[in-house]
Amino acid sequence: LNQETDGMRLITERQVQQYVTIEAIIASIELAFKALDRGQSAIFPVVSGTGSDPANFIGVKSGRDGSTGMFGVKAGAYNPFNRQRGMKTHTSVTLLIDDLTSTPVAVVQADYLNGMRTAAADALAVRELARADAATLGVIGAGSQAVFEIEAIMTVRKIERVLAGARSLESGENFARRVQEKLGLRVELASIEETVRDILVTVTPSTTPLFDSAWVRPGTHISAMGADNVGKMELPVDLVAVSQLYVDYPDQAALIGEAQHVFNAGHISLDQLRERSLGALLNGRVAGRLSPDAITVFDSSGIAVQDVAAAQTAVTIVSAAEPALTEDFNRP
Amino acid sequence: LNQETDGMRLITERQVQQYVTIEAIIASIELAFKALDRGQSAIFPVVSGTGSDPANFIGVKSGRDGSTGMFGVKAGAYNPFNRQRGMKTHTSVTLLIDDLTSTPVAVVQADYLNGMRTAAADALAVRELARADAATLGVIGAGSQAVFEIEAIMTVRKIERVLAGARSLESGENFARRVQEKLGLRVELASIEETVRDILVTVTPSTTPLFDSAWVRPGTHISAMGADNVGKMELPVDLVAVSQLYVDYPDQAALIGEAQHVFNAGHISLDQLRERSLGALLNGRVAGRLSPDAITVFDSSGIAVQDVAAAQTAVTIVSAAEPALTEDFNRP
Repeated sequence: LNQETDGMRLITERQVQQYVTIEAIIASIELAFKALDRGQSAIFPVVSGTGSDPANFIGVKSGRDGSTGMFGVKAGAYNPFNRQRGMKTHTSVTLLIDDLTSTPVAVVQADYLNGMRTAAADALAVRELARADAATLGVIGAGSQAVFEIEAIMTVRKIERVLAGARSLESGENFARRVQEKLGLRVELASIEETVRDILVTVTPSTTPLFDSAWVRPGTHISAMGADNVGKMELPVDLVAVSQLYVDYPDQAALIGEAQHVFNAGHISLDQLRERSLGALLNGRVAGRLSPDAITVFDSSGIAVQDVAAAQTAVTIVSAAEPALTEDFNRP
Repeated sequence: LNQETDGMRLITERQVQQYVTIEAIIASIELAFKALDRGQSAIFPVVSGTGSDPANFIGVKSGRDGSTGMFGVKAGAYNPFNRQRGMKTHTSVTLLIDDLTSTPVAVVQADYLNGMRTAAADALAVRELARADAATLGVIGAGSQAVFEIEAIMTVRKIERVLAGARSLESGENFARRVQEKLGLRVELASIEETVRDILVTVTPSTTPLFDSAWVRPGTHISAMGADNVGKMELPVDLVAVSQLYVDYPDQAALIGEAQHVFNAGHISLDQLRERSLGALLNGRVAGRLSPDAITVFDSSGIAVQDVAAAQTAVTIVSAAEPALTEDFNRP
């Protein structure tokens, strides 16, 4: 036992960014979704509220992940005032507790990891659902999460062109520069209409549809990553209603995901939605794309087992790369 | 900024036990209850569930504490199987996140701290409510929490005798030995009836009254520390109904505290209970003991602001005693 940490480990942002690859996170997120579908996991209710400033949002996601044998709690915050402070607007930190012995195992700084775990679900959906010949990736949204989405999808599909639709030329150019720096990849700036091609990822905080359903050609796959709260919306309801829809976690998707709108409009019941989970798709319990002309939609709202699996993967990888201190350097 | 921890600190059980005193925790818990009563804090809904073994319980308490400017999340677990493993049956760990900037600040191993923060509320209630001449302390329950209760109450009152009522002679003798070792104090083993004296602390997982209300003399103060879930109960309902009742957090007490039974029986309304908080008592907004003959009851179910305030106190004290590493020892 490591005396200094009483056996508990702190995994830092620096360590996550240095050692943890998107491939490792995609592999762990696949196992987590499969275990969830097999009934080996549990998602606890999401708690959310504000900081003392009501514009400052905090959410607590917790659950038990059967694929890692860990219970975890992620506290995620959104702080719009941090922009002026030159600080991150989104922060995440995940606690891991051993399911069997209830022993706290690690705390993982999860700002970067949160981007990866979200994009990993998207990549799995694209791998399962996009047409075999899909080679153009469109992205709507120019925030930091969109960079993770491109990176993750590039690992599962051979993408020839990346088209980015942004609110302004300035944000589009900033985004293209960030993708170039991180991924060494050229992004073409495009109108929203042009981005709607083979594979489309939407990753915005929108509350109204980002485009007209008439723009969507047969055979498109869309991953709607933005909606994670009541009222959020990126896609036209009539498009989702006629698509092959898949969701990360049906009970949550019906409340806060893109699926809330087709659910509220009566296009799909909760029982039907429960047969449309990513885990069931990965386990082969439900069919994937039924024809080359089908429009497939994946709705991600983000769930605790992703946080747990990603954090445990970070602990495993970082612990191998940098064994914990075994002497008590801190003792005076 | 400390590179190795990206500014985040891990406070260990060893550090808490070595440096953090009950006096410091009582002082911080008083500030937390006062801030809560002034409307400067927020308690988020409690989330609870089980491990993959349904006998293994986990609870997540979160909230924002105005006295420290911190948001916090405590994951607390009860694992009955750990007894056979020679491990702790109760584990706690608390995350602290700065309210203003949403920055994760620390993770605190809180097994010992949890005992202190619970007992601190009890000590504050005893200080405010017990008769000035109360000199005998009775304790029902012989677990590790009862040791913290005695330690905390000794700091606010001059206690001449401590009487302990336990389920069996063996557990009573074990308990007396643990109190002797930790506090250097002699505990007299007694019948349950004998323990009901000037000040009584009940700290059991009971679901039925521990004694008959006829045994309680006028002028007694009782702190009921056990009830923290639906169905838990330590005191006779008729006794609580005629007492001056105070609770840590009215909305929670009505659901899971000792107060749930008088509330469910219609003896007290939620509005009335909301005028009976420990914070209001400490702020002087409600009266304390009305006569030497009154029976006063304090009902503790445990709230997130206690966890936050105690954890921040631990961070402050430990950081002063053992400054964090400023070099990156872990880097290979």
